[in-house]
Amino acid sequence: MDAVHFVTEDFAAMEKHFRTTFINSLTGFKSANLVGTVSREGNTNLAIFNSAVHIGANPPLIGLIFRPISVSRHTYQNIKATGYYTLNHVHKSFFKQAHQTSARFAAGVSEFDACGLTAELSQFQPAPYVKESFIKIGMKFEEEYQIRVNETILVIGSIIEALLPKICLLEDGFVDIEQAGTVAISGLESYHETTRLARLAYAKPNQSPKEI
Amino acid sequence: MDAVHFVTEDFAAMEKHFRTTFINSLTGFKSANLVGTVSREGNTNLAIFNSAVHIGANPPLIGLIFRPISVSRHTYQNIKATGYYTLNHVHKSFFKQAHQTSARFAAGVSEFDACGLTAELSQFQPAPYVKESFIKIGMKFEEEYQIRVNETILVIGSIIEALLPKICLLEDGFVDIEQAGTVAISGLESYHETTRLARLAYAKPNQSPKEI
Repeated sequence: MDAVHFVTEDFAAMEKHFRTTFINSLTGFKSANLVGTVSREGNTNLAIFNSAVHIGANPPLIGLIFRPISVSRHTYQNIKATGYYTLNHVHKSFFKQAHQTSARFAAGVSEFDACGLTAELSQFQPAPYVKESFIKIGMKFEEEYQIRVNETILVIGSIIEALLPKICLLEDGFVDIEQAGTVAISGLESYHETTRLARLAYAKPNQSPKEI
Repeated sequence: MDAVHFVTEDFAAMEKHFRTTFINSLTGFKSANLVGTVSREGNTNLAIFNSAVHIGANPPLIGLIFRPISVSRHTYQNIKATGYYTLNHVHKSFFKQAHQTSARFAAGVSEFDACGLTAELSQFQPAPYVKESFIKIGMKFEEEYQIRVNETILVIGSIIEALLPKICLLEDGFVDIEQAGTVAISGLESYHETTRLARLAYAKPNQSPKEI
């Protein structure tokens, strides 16, 4: 198979949009989450993120990457102002509406209304969930780190609430997000459904990988 | 659809393995990368990671999360000792071998040998690539941040080399990782192939999402 090869000087010389698209493709498949927030004034906001990363299970922690100036700036401001946000898995039935939340809507326009998604309140925290989402996670802000080299921000929150279909929760704690219709992202804007190859048991030396 | 609902006290009360499996499922789909390193003494190491996260395109940066004490401890030590590492997309033809790298092999055993994968050298840096991988990324260590709340470590590296099949690189810079056979992970050990739903154009207000 013919290969292409790029090094540091090539990245620097790439046309800006080409480079953004190219570099965003390299990490592999990404999660697709809608982040729901509310301002102190009560305006709801919804933004798609592909950067959720597992930080720890006990206490349960998830990280999100924010660009220094980004379409998600209201999301960041609302998280800092209220201390709470929600993660809502993007389902294949509404991935186009989810993508549309990345448009730069005028101030005061809620992406819930503009994109045809429904805000749903919780009694545990003020941030809105996406009613159409099957897997919903309530988050409390914990810490943030500004990355020196490019001023992006890692925001870490603790999971304070989780809602999911009973049928997707297996006996051992595994959540079958494929069965829930959760999509994967590649690059900035390619959406994918999935087909399981296998679940593999905890690996041990001198033993072949076993399917669960 | 019947829903289940968990809050903070429920997470704390969960059996340890159940909680680990459950919380690891919540972020959504994850990338599958083999991280290749070499010690100062020349011993190669290979470890599967599902935590690669895009940090920036210019300069091109990727983050990885390391647990405080983990199966990836050699990976971390080698990165700190040599300053270099590789990311290699896991292809569906070798996801079982890739998973097997997470077994706790004895010191001095290279996961390349133990798992039936082939180390491939580069002239640009000392860390080994996985020959069987179609998309290979050479990384230089840049920064690290220790997360206060649970002592995990965010390692940030710059991309110094990228190798991929010519046929997977589209005109606009998008890399078709689905065509390359790259797999997605859910939870800790569930491997998935993907089927594209659509690529969507940059979203604009007052315009429906358009497929590219």
